[in-house]
Amino acid sequence: MIKYNLKMGVNNIADLLRKKIGSTKVKTSEEYLLSYSYDSTGIKKKPDIVAFPENESDISNILKIASKFKIPLTPRGGGLGYSGGSVPVEGGIVLAFSRMNRIIRFDEKNLLMEVEPGVITSKVIEVSESRGLFYPPDPASLKNSTIGGNVSENAGGPRCFKYGVTSDYVMAVEGFLMNGEKVKFGSYSIKDVSGYDIKKLIVGSEGTLIVLSKIILRVIPKPESRILIRVGFSSMRSGADFIMKIIRFNLSPSVLEFIDKTSLDAVNKYLQTEKDSSINSVVLLELDGGKEEIANKLNSLKQLASEFGINDIEIADNEDDMEELWSIRRNLSPAISSLKPKKINEDIAVPIGNVPDAIEYISGLADEYNINVVMFGHLGDGNIHTNVMIDPSNKREVENSKIVLDKIFKYVISVKGTISGEHGIGLSKKEFLGYQYSEREIEIFRKIKGVFDPENLLNPGKIF
Amino acid sequence: MIKYNLKMGVNNIADLLRKKIGSTKVKTSEEYLLSYSYDSTGIKKKPDIVAFPENESDISNILKIASKFKIPLTPRGGGLGYSGGSVPVEGGIVLAFSRMNRIIRFDEKNLLMEVEPGVITSKVIEVSESRGLFYPPDPASLKNSTIGGNVSENAGGPRCFKYGVTSDYVMAVEGFLMNGEKVKFGSYSIKDVSGYDIKKLIVGSEGTLIVLSKIILRVIPKPESRILIRVGFSSMRSGADFIMKIIRFNLSPSVLEFIDKTSLDAVNKYLQTEKDSSINSVVLLELDGGKEEIANKLNSLKQLASEFGINDIEIADNEDDMEELWSIRRNLSPAISSLKPKKINEDIAVPIGNVPDAIEYISGLADEYNINVVMFGHLGDGNIHTNVMIDPSNKREVENSKIVLDKIFKYVISVKGTISGEHGIGLSKKEFLGYQYSEREIEIFRKIKGVFDPENLLNPGKIF
Repeated sequence: MIKYNLKMGVNNIADLLRKKIGSTKVKTSEEYLLSYSYDSTGIKKKPDIVAFPENESDISNILKIASKFKIPLTPRGGGLGYSGGSVPVEGGIVLAFSRMNRIIRFDEKNLLMEVEPGVITSKVIEVSESRGLFYPPDPASLKNSTIGGNVSENAGGPRCFKYGVTSDYVMAVEGFLMNGEKVKFGSYSIKDVSGYDIKKLIVGSEGTLIVLSKIILRVIPKPESRILIRVGFSSMRSGADFIMKIIRFNLSPSVLEFIDKTSLDAVNKYLQTEKDSSINSVVLLELDGGKEEIANKLNSLKQLASEFGINDIEIADNEDDMEELWSIRRNLSPAISSLKPKKINEDIAVPIGNVPDAIEYISGLADEYNINVVMFGHLGDGNIHTNVMIDPSNKREVENSKIVLDKIFKYVISVKGTISGEHGIGLSKKEFLGYQYSEREIEIFRKIKGVFDPENLLNPGKIF
Repeated sequence: MIKYNLKMGVNNIADLLRKKIGSTKVKTSEEYLLSYSYDSTGIKKKPDIVAFPENESDISNILKIASKFKIPLTPRGGGLGYSGGSVPVEGGIVLAFSRMNRIIRFDEKNLLMEVEPGVITSKVIEVSESRGLFYPPDPASLKNSTIGGNVSENAGGPRCFKYGVTSDYVMAVEGFLMNGEKVKFGSYSIKDVSGYDIKKLIVGSEGTLIVLSKIILRVIPKPESRILIRVGFSSMRSGADFIMKIIRFNLSPSVLEFIDKTSLDAVNKYLQTEKDSSINSVVLLELDGGKEEIANKLNSLKQLASEFGINDIEIADNEDDMEELWSIRRNLSPAISSLKPKKINEDIAVPIGNVPDAIEYISGLADEYNINVVMFGHLGDGNIHTNVMIDPSNKREVENSKIVLDKIFKYVISVKGTISGEHGIGLSKKEFLGYQYSEREIEIFRKIKGVFDPENLLNPGKIF
């Protein structure tokens, strides 16, 4: 890691920034540096300065100063990433977007909206729904995550099974190169093949290519209604097999989630509810569309379930009941965290047909190495949230978790899957990128980074 | 344009290639050079050599020789592009993919297929459908176009309104850098955020970044059934307004096409059918899904139509009747071509809500400059095929077509649309790229090209 040298001293740089953009927008006190030093991985590194741009001109000015004095700069949204993307590992400036949180324009006629990067994801969803429209991507952290962060990580979520990921809703991006120059890519048209598709390259680039200042999001008509269905299975395998059946059949559920036995045990313990000992995996499905369409699909679903020997399925068709059914899923994160002090949160994805085998393979590893591995998530997409739970003070668990993770990543690559389906590489999966890409391919990533940021100042130390 | 120097002489290079990959795969005779000199734009430039790789090793060997002797190389699929993407403007080698036309593997379990770039689009569609699966992208040329060409241009088509464009179905690409090195990007998992999304950058890059050797396509379950609907309107505006209404409403037709008055006149003349003088625009819709779902949607559609004062709509629910209803659309291209000797084929796209205004604006221009402009296409996507019909020997028409096109492009950009929704920039829209992108942004395109092909040998002279 290169140690950048703040030749002028932090205070001088901070003063220069204050003079340029206003003193209330630049912070160097310990509490700020600490608050902006970490994300959900728990990896910590304090920045030297936290800057709060309020408009495009602030961003440009900050970037010009940072690039002039070669100060690393890390953009940050909600700081909720699972791969360390917003941790300022090389110090310097954190660019915090909490004051650029407006929906600039909701363009109902063209079914799009212009937003600032700091807008909270749930606000985008709510504003859309209030107009009978729909912004589908729903990462778990949506109540606190920002669209800028979602775009930078190409966030997913349960609904992405039917509706696609963040990338599918980004029509155009505006932002600044590290040297402070403004650039725009994409257009307000759904179809656009003019020039290279740089906006798609920027989505998911983990804040390493440009600093976003405006994002143009597409919205779609809101489905008329939806119902949530919970189906319990006697084994892990039969739950996963059921999901495969659903995918192949023409039901197109909007959500298709899986919860494994260890997760169920953890949630039952956490919520102090009694466990149904005959249930060893759960599938959650959401069907949406017109009421009659849903009714027809539900009939087909019941038919499919009965082929699996399941005649009892739980159905919720109002918000309260849906919330109740969804509670297992919602309480997963805290419940799992209570199992062991440390959660190593992975988000591998495999080709969809490989899901049952992958789950069986990983369960087998957990048994073999006597370690807690909790799996749940978006199995319709082949995206398995694989949480390796350990006690960091237990040397055996620490060692075994490394072996197990390494084996999981190797397995995933052997079936042509990916080491990250949603969270990005950031810091936490950097050492594994070489499992998926060759040296030559990673060199291409590096050179592309160099096209946008030749001095490697923008969110340095990430991905590769 | 740089004139490349075949220092060794064409015959020596051809001999070297023959020795390396086999004599039947290398052609230098006039008939081959002529056949591989043009695409659907009519722009012509003969290559010096046509090479027909049959496998990956052939591709790599050809590229190594081409890059060693600095010979420009242009990959070519069906040669059906509308922007000159496969025209070897700087001579050198055309890499013709007609012998790499296999479906390597149809992986029904994982809902994907591995194909060679030269496979014909309709074959991919047919093979999928024979297994109850669906590959939606349907460019008009699908019976002769190749998947390699579709991927390189990010081809669209009518069904893309509901199902998305080629890019949405490419899971991974394999291919070769200009220096002959193999690279792979993407995975066999639907979700993948590992590293930069280079596969999305390669899709639509018009064969300028890598030479594709294998494409991994996603397929989805085939909709149970479909119906086609034709609605006639008394004015252009009301047809376009109707489309806007459909988009906002939750009908999600799989196809939503528009045909303007001039197109209708041309088709009627071409097919020698009588024109219904009360019809001045036509909307074609396809509804797909379960039978009951379609019936419900059809009811909603009739309701919407009656709000437009339309009570008669034509409905086709079997292949023959659908073919009959679709005939206007299918005969558009030849019918229009009979209007004037030259068709300037543009494919602008605007924000969807702007479609009615755009059509009115362009019609107005056509009247003002007394020139034939025919509009039809994928209006659900804002993608308007705008054909300026001229007689090249008529100086006034030639001059006016330039003025009108320039005004159309400026208008499109003023409403934040794009100069190309489907066809790409290639040669024919190169001079207009600067309307949509700044010098700095185009410089980024150039530098990205340089990352993959530093000597600018791969399909040189295109896009920028």
